[in-house]
Amino acid sequence: MTNKVAELFGITYPIVQGGMVWCSGWELASAVSNNGGLGLLGSGSMYPEVLEAHIVKTKNATDKPFGVNVPLLYPSIEQHIETILKHKVPIVFTSAGNPKTWTAKLKDAGITVVHVVSSSKFAAKAEAAGVDAIVAEGFEAGGHNGREETTTLTLIPSVKKATSLPLIAAGGIGTGSAIAAAQALGADGVQIGTRFAMSREASCHPDFKTLLTKLTEGETQLSLKKLAPVRLIKNKFFEAVFAAESAGSTPEALRELLGKGRAKKGMFEGNLDEGELEIGQVAALLDSIEPVSDIMHALVDEYRTSIAQLAHNSF
Amino acid sequence: MTNKVAELFGITYPIVQGGMVWCSGWELASAVSNNGGLGLLGSGSMYPEVLEAHIVKTKNATDKPFGVNVPLLYPSIEQHIETILKHKVPIVFTSAGNPKTWTAKLKDAGITVVHVVSSSKFAAKAEAAGVDAIVAEGFEAGGHNGREETTTLTLIPSVKKATSLPLIAAGGIGTGSAIAAAQALGADGVQIGTRFAMSREASCHPDFKTLLTKLTEGETQLSLKKLAPVRLIKNKFFEAVFAAESAGSTPEALRELLGKGRAKKGMFEGNLDEGELEIGQVAALLDSIEPVSDIMHALVDEYRTSIAQLAHNSF
Repeated sequence: MTNKVAELFGITYPIVQGGMVWCSGWELASAVSNNGGLGLLGSGSMYPEVLEAHIVKTKNATDKPFGVNVPLLYPSIEQHIETILKHKVPIVFTSAGNPKTWTAKLKDAGITVVHVVSSSKFAAKAEAAGVDAIVAEGFEAGGHNGREETTTLTLIPSVKKATSLPLIAAGGIGTGSAIAAAQALGADGVQIGTRFAMSREASCHPDFKTLLTKLTEGETQLSLKKLAPVRLIKNKFFEAVFAAESAGSTPEALRELLGKGRAKKGMFEGNLDEGELEIGQVAALLDSIEPVSDIMHALVDEYRTSIAQLAHNSF
Repeated sequence: MTNKVAELFGITYPIVQGGMVWCSGWELASAVSNNGGLGLLGSGSMYPEVLEAHIVKTKNATDKPFGVNVPLLYPSIEQHIETILKHKVPIVFTSAGNPKTWTAKLKDAGITVVHVVSSSKFAAKAEAAGVDAIVAEGFEAGGHNGREETTTLTLIPSVKKATSLPLIAAGGIGTGSAIAAAQALGADGVQIGTRFAMSREASCHPDFKTLLTKLTEGETQLSLKKLAPVRLIKNKFFEAVFAAESAGSTPEALRELLGKGRAKKGMFEGNLDEGELEIGQVAALLDSIEPVSDIMHALVDEYRTSIAQLAHNSF
């Protein structure tokens, strides 16, 4: 049986590693690609020259397909796109912006383009813009997130109705049984962030990873909805935001409270009190830092066990 | 293969109809039970004498097992419990309160007791209180909802780890493929609210049902978090709440805005502007009002198709 997502990217398993700010450098992306998934560089936290260095290192570390995630609102996006074209990166995932702007240029260069959406309305727009596949990401996902707060369980079937493109489910997926669940809902493949942020190869700070192993249910919350909704760990910085929001703070006041460089401070520099710490709800289920090879094996094993149990337990 | 949930209740399919305020009277509950699921009366919107009348009518309409959902914070709960004992209702689902208070008394009378939770911490407490099964309900569910905002996709595996009791998934489940997804995540059965609120037999107002058929993604939102979080349709009343919350309103001011009888006004009397309209995110996927028999057949058919496709498409 061929899988649409595995076939589109030329990979073994339809498992994409999310291109996460401050987590997804060349070590993570190449390890995922070398283990049969699709590794993505997270260019949203990289200066143009840093992205270029990571692309070159990824190419040296793997001969398998890999990609770059590009947030379309990135200030130096023209430079990112030029770097991607220059180095003939085979796959680009775009997010947080209008897919019309860059899809044609990337496709003309022979690049496979995937767009990340949080609603079936945006999925239909992405299909109209000519992308090759859709990532539909639910409310439980880490980091920046849709305004409508639709969860993965309800989002995937809606997006499936809205588009005929290969469909990749994201948000809340950190285990093989969740991959089976996503497939039951109509997804062809999955994008996994949190579990890979907790891998040895992720470039985030070791103290951030250790914190992730200890997180329990309810320790993240979608926040900063008056600016751009983002799922944060409930640390000291979050508590300040929460208090400001409860008191009715304006967007301007929240922007001032947020300041600049909070995500880097938290996830890359390991300032767990003052940093902006982005992670998905599924962190509560995960409690160890593992090498990517172990994660990929576990995901596939868990998935196959789950499929076998479903057939056995069905009514 | 025996199913833990079907076996516990003595029913054909492990599908429970949620006991929803203003929607779940004797016609709905008996229809679900007569079609192989478990029907529940929603006692949270019933005066004691109304609950008694509905129990008697349900017994006249079905010889299959049925139950009553009892919100533990209901003001006349002692009377509800006495009515349930007097009429030997075989199954009680408790929610919104401490399961320690009533579980032993109900169990002593031979009643099967199930408690609804929104976290694995509460699931462990319910197991310690002696309940027979757990409903774990995610953020996407309609009506009152947990503070931690954990979605069904991430909640079910966590609760599965925390308890060995039969596990019923709720929130976002309105189709057979979502039943398969819930089972992949570790649930033994499901509780479905929204799809049954849209049945012919539901006791809510026809105009409310018609509105549900037209809802699209993003038209509900978890609201009133400073009081008790509740998922509402974004109508005129919601907009007033949202504006007050954005401006930092106190719990007292929100309570005054809410007033009394809003849920009845909206869902039972059909005042779609001023009423409190509770429904799950999955309403966006559903677009018709059907008899319960059709819904039950469709759920089981969709479920079996989904299981067969999973086996066929697995990697």
